[in-house]
Amino acid sequence: MATLRLVAAHPTIPTAEEVNAHFVEMFPAAASTGVRCHSIEKGSATARWSFDETQLRPGRYISGPTMFMLADTALWFAAFSVIGIESMAVTNEMSIRFLRPAQDGDLLARASIDSVSSRRIVGTIQLWIDGHPDLLVAVAQGGYARPAESS
Amino acid sequence: MATLRLVAAHPTIPTAEEVNAHFVEMFPAAASTGVRCHSIEKGSATARWSFDETQLRPGRYISGPTMFMLADTALWFAAFSVIGIESMAVTNEMSIRFLRPAQDGDLLARASIDSVSSRRIVGTIQLWIDGHPDLLVAVAQGGYARPAESS
Amino acid sequence: MATLRLVAAHPTIPTAEEVNAHFVEMFPAAASTGVRCHSIEKGSATARWSFDETQLRPGRYISGPTMFMLADTALWFAAFSVIGIESMAVTNEMSIRFLRPAQDGDLLARASIDSVSSRRIVGTIQLWIDGHPDLLVAVAQGGYARPAESS
Amino acid sequence: MATLRLVAAHPTIPTAEEVNAHFVEMFPAAASTGVRCHSIEKGSATARWSFDETQLRPGRYISGPTMFMLADTALWFAAFSVIGIESMAVTNEMSIRFLRPAQDGDLLARASIDSVSSRRIVGTIQLWIDGHPDLLVAVAQGGYARPAESS
Repeated sequence: MATLRLVAAHPTIPTAEEVNAHFVEMFPAAASTGVRCHSIEKGSATARWSFDETQLRPGRYISGPTMFMLADTALWFAAFSVIGIESMAVTNEMSIRFLRPAQDGDLLARASIDSVSSRRIVGTIQLWIDGHPDLLVAVAQGGYARPAESS
Repeated sequence: MATLRLVAAHPTIPTAEEVNAHFVEMFPAAASTGVRCHSIEKGSATARWSFDETQLRPGRYISGPTMFMLADTALWFAAFSVIGIESMAVTNEMSIRFLRPAQDGDLLARASIDSVSSRRIVGTIQLWIDGHPDLLVAVAQGGYARPAESS
Repeated sequence: MATLRLVAAHPTIPTAEEVNAHFVEMFPAAASTGVRCHSIEKGSATARWSFDETQLRPGRYISGPTMFMLADTALWFAAFSVIGIESMAVTNEMSIRFLRPAQDGDLLARASIDSVSSRRIVGTIQLWIDGHPDLLVAVAQGGYARPAESS
Repeated sequence: MATLRLVAAHPTIPTAEEVNAHFVEMFPAAASTGVRCHSIEKGSATARWSFDETQLRPGRYISGPTMFMLADTALWFAAFSVIGIESMAVTNEMSIRFLRPAQDGDLLARASIDSVSSRRIVGTIQLWIDGHPDLLVAVAQGGYARPAESS
């Protein structure tokens, strides 16, 4: 299977704690939704959404927009592992497929970086309910644009 | 340009007020985000997200997940216009492209239905800031799955 | 509905004949598949794939990759209308939804530009069989990247 | 990382030779483009496009539609590994991201199945030039619809 050669300008991979400190300080509205970085390593990161009764849809389903938000955030965290935590990057585009109902637990999203160039970071994301990593509830794929000045 | 021949089982198009009454009653968590149906007609609907200071990203940007949520909701409202308000339908997949910063106003999303079959409803969505319909902030396209029993 | 404010550097919109002359000369392999620009105007273009018995799938279906190819080409033609025919632009990403079987006629794809920036051109594409513009066989949406030097 | 629990009705995974025999017999137009199944195992398959000088774009690039076609075919082959080679399945939707120029070699696409339900098969695809598996030229993700009668 294809592996990844990352041309990283920043040699230091932040810890999950450093990512969360940055996230809570800079993005308090996003952090208030219960999302945190669960783990991070070179080329990937896992984000967790803590189960919140008040955000469910009828049938007690975790909503599609909640899954999109976690996928987007996981990819952003994963980007930190290759371009550094201070970098600016904005979502360019993303597609998401919903596979089965997401219920009754924390939601996890693992993003793997597929490609890093001077202008774009592309990755693939898998989402599942905590304890059921073999039953994906959604998959996504998308890209972050890096500011023009960094190219 | 291609126009749409809708094979609608439900001849009655709900009003925006009927859509909102259903939305607030059945999806209180989603409705609490400030989303409402702004208008609906055969084959399309427009949803509005009322500007909320507390949900902004640094730089006072409306977040990508907020735009995804509104695009998804607009397509769901548009589906009501062809299959009826009581129908069950769940997002199957959606892709979204972010085009420019979204700031300083209510967000609007207009969904147009491209196709209706017994199993799937597909549509295209344009998003802009109120007052600036000629400067799209995002576009999306996606599909809703209809339950198997309806086929 | 949202309309488009195009910030075009090139004031001259090429004719379909000019687009085709460029296409046949520069992209002979692509042109040999039977694709041509059918029409072009500011912000949109229509491409046509001439029905070819030898390229069909079992059941005499026009293949998904043929539809993708035409959607991609239509968006590229539409880009000519806003950035000029000589411009370099490469597909960045595209998503496509297949809606119903495509059979028994020329395939048409109309691309409408949604957004033009210094780095990216995004548009939406509708595909149908000649004579049946009200029964879309596929819809797509995607972006072309402009070279960094043009930003 | 999330792994996959496949609920396969067909216990027998076809060999690459069996897939190719079926492909060449049933889809001669597609097979004439130089695509073949390279390998197949439970939940994944790799397809190969043999380098063809006559199909290149200016700059000797392998075209985007060629990459889409191979990604689509690889996912179809991978589906054989979980639902059997005789099954009917048609592409529902697919998104593709082009990451870097594809040149000077055979193109390979590896599809991994993310989810199998009675109505849909979803997977993720990575593409690279033979000999350079660490430099992905494109990634894709999409779904195949299974006929209603199989649900």
